[in-house]
Amino acid sequence: MKATLIYGAGDVRVGEVPDPVLKQPTDALVRVVRACICGSDLWPYGSKAATATGDRIGHEFLGVVEDLGSEVSGFSRGDLVLAPFVWSDGTCDFCREGLQTSCRHGGLWGRDGVDGGQGEAVRVPQAAGTLVKLPVGEDSALLPSLLTLSDVFCTGHHCAVTAGVGPRTTVTVIGDGAVGLSAVLAARRLGAERIILMGRHKERTDLGVEFGATDVVAERGDEGVEKVRELTGGDGTHTVLECVGLEQAVDTAFGVVRAGGTVSRVGAPQYDKVSFGFSDFFRNITLTGGVAPARAYIEELLPDVLEGRIEPGRVFDRTVGLDEVPDGYRAMADRTALKVLIKP
Amino acid sequence: MKATLIYGAGDVRVGEVPDPVLKQPTDALVRVVRACICGSDLWPYGSKAATATGDRIGHEFLGVVEDLGSEVSGFSRGDLVLAPFVWSDGTCDFCREGLQTSCRHGGLWGRDGVDGGQGEAVRVPQAAGTLVKLPVGEDSALLPSLLTLSDVFCTGHHCAVTAGVGPRTTVTVIGDGAVGLSAVLAARRLGAERIILMGRHKERTDLGVEFGATDVVAERGDEGVEKVRELTGGDGTHTVLECVGLEQAVDTAFGVVRAGGTVSRVGAPQYDKVSFGFSDFFRNITLTGGVAPARAYIEELLPDVLEGRIEPGRVFDRTVGLDEVPDGYRAMADRTALKVLIKP
Repeated sequence: MKATLIYGAGDVRVGEVPDPVLKQPTDALVRVVRACICGSDLWPYGSKAATATGDRIGHEFLGVVEDLGSEVSGFSRGDLVLAPFVWSDGTCDFCREGLQTSCRHGGLWGRDGVDGGQGEAVRVPQAAGTLVKLPVGEDSALLPSLLTLSDVFCTGHHCAVTAGVGPRTTVTVIGDGAVGLSAVLAARRLGAERIILMGRHKERTDLGVEFGATDVVAERGDEGVEKVRELTGGDGTHTVLECVGLEQAVDTAFGVVRAGGTVSRVGAPQYDKVSFGFSDFFRNITLTGGVAPARAYIEELLPDVLEGRIEPGRVFDRTVGLDEVPDGYRAMADRTALKVLIKP
Repeated sequence: MKATLIYGAGDVRVGEVPDPVLKQPTDALVRVVRACICGSDLWPYGSKAATATGDRIGHEFLGVVEDLGSEVSGFSRGDLVLAPFVWSDGTCDFCREGLQTSCRHGGLWGRDGVDGGQGEAVRVPQAAGTLVKLPVGEDSALLPSLLTLSDVFCTGHHCAVTAGVGPRTTVTVIGDGAVGLSAVLAARRLGAERIILMGRHKERTDLGVEFGATDVVAERGDEGVEKVRELTGGDGTHTVLECVGLEQAVDTAFGVVRAGGTVSRVGAPQYDKVSFGFSDFFRNITLTGGVAPARAYIEELLPDVLEGRIEPGRVFDRTVGLDEVPDGYRAMADRTALKVLIKP
């Protein structure tokens, strides 16, 4: 079958790989109907060391069950299913606590002999714990929004949930990428009173406003901090959703959070240390967040997508076939596309 | 009157200062009955640059109301009162939220013309918001335990509360100083299932065991991390209470916290940055805590002290008069005393 491989920085190709087959009785085979490119795929696309053989990539997909191992209950061939971006058994203590990203028998797509999501098909390990059945057909217009439950919208939601966003909460969202916009939508869904979106790409912040941002701050760094403080009577906001992953964004987050408030970070950290010393200690700032256990949130968010109350799939502004995936990476890296949907 | 002054590292003296007088209608004058030396006083005692005039010091005290400004309601002359280690108006939005340490009209003892606590008397600004009346006499045997509600026990409690300690929680406490031992007692009071105390001073960890520690780990650094992991099946504990304030202690905290868990820090940070990169992000670790809004907790903790269910005052192992305060600093710095009570 065909699948996406990354050979190094700036070098993504679509090539032939072995067709997946069931290896464990807990596996399922899924033919991919929709996949997409993640902002986090751009980190290796920006800096990965060259490899001769190429590594599989992609971790967001939905598709049709083609075969099932003998121990996979709850699914049938032909079911349309969604996979979260980490696979997990659904039964260990971490899974039961809703932290499927730390599953004792789980793992990441595209590693250790597991297929990546940007291909024609995927062998899904721990299928009973990993997959969620979707009650629509593969021609549904909802597929883009449903696909966001694999990662990007659940990541924004995780950011808002761990930050403690609720009614009467004021929120700053840092970053106008697909995760930042998802965080705006998630904060709005949770009832946030005010949502200040920090981003400088107008077409993106315009979508942010449609998703629920009440204010947009285009300035960055100290100027951006000053602007948010101006908007909030000098105090900053109760919560800050850091959706970038760079040290400067974390510094900005501490700059705009109100005393007693919470910074949640879901941007994959491109740093080892954070500046978090005495003044933030004295102000009782909490730093939380992390990689989103998407699997924990899918059932809760699904009805809002199915019933059209939220349209997180609006973050997709370009659709490509599998052969055009390299163009999709280029477009996202050049910021000519916000998020690219793949229709294999 | 006499009060304690710090002239630089290692140089604490008791000298004459002006008698306090009411300056604002919101002030009270309090004759100090008990005060004490805080672990955080040892930071300036260890490193403060020399000054010619000396600075006032001390922020934990209880005493008798000697005079009241015209706007201070709820108190009478002769009342025994407790002061938390930050004064606050009790009416601003932060105070109403329970974050009195960020009060819009509050401040610290011993600064900006406000007396320090280690003296014969104190002018208490914002007295109605700051002080708590104690329903005992000044000869009560409970005074040491009541005094811990000014700072040290509330600090341990804040650490446990912000970490989310409750029944079924496993806890590691880092540090066997008075704050660490208070955190053990607070975690036990909140119902923690297991409390691992990391400390290497046997007489202190022995008190920790009496306060509720179920395990003691004397090893530090990587060895200490390994030991806690051994005790917890490799996972670490749900919560870690960091009661030291050094970067190594924070690193240890991240090393012993379970995925999805929380590190709370109440040791005044002697660092600007913390190592908190991808692996802790992937494990969804939260870093919280901060300076304890003691005022928010006093009413809640008071009954347990008054009715003898907890004895946080056991952290005091030496009592000095005001003239011996310099000896008290030396004893705490040399670790020959755990925490020194002052009886002016």
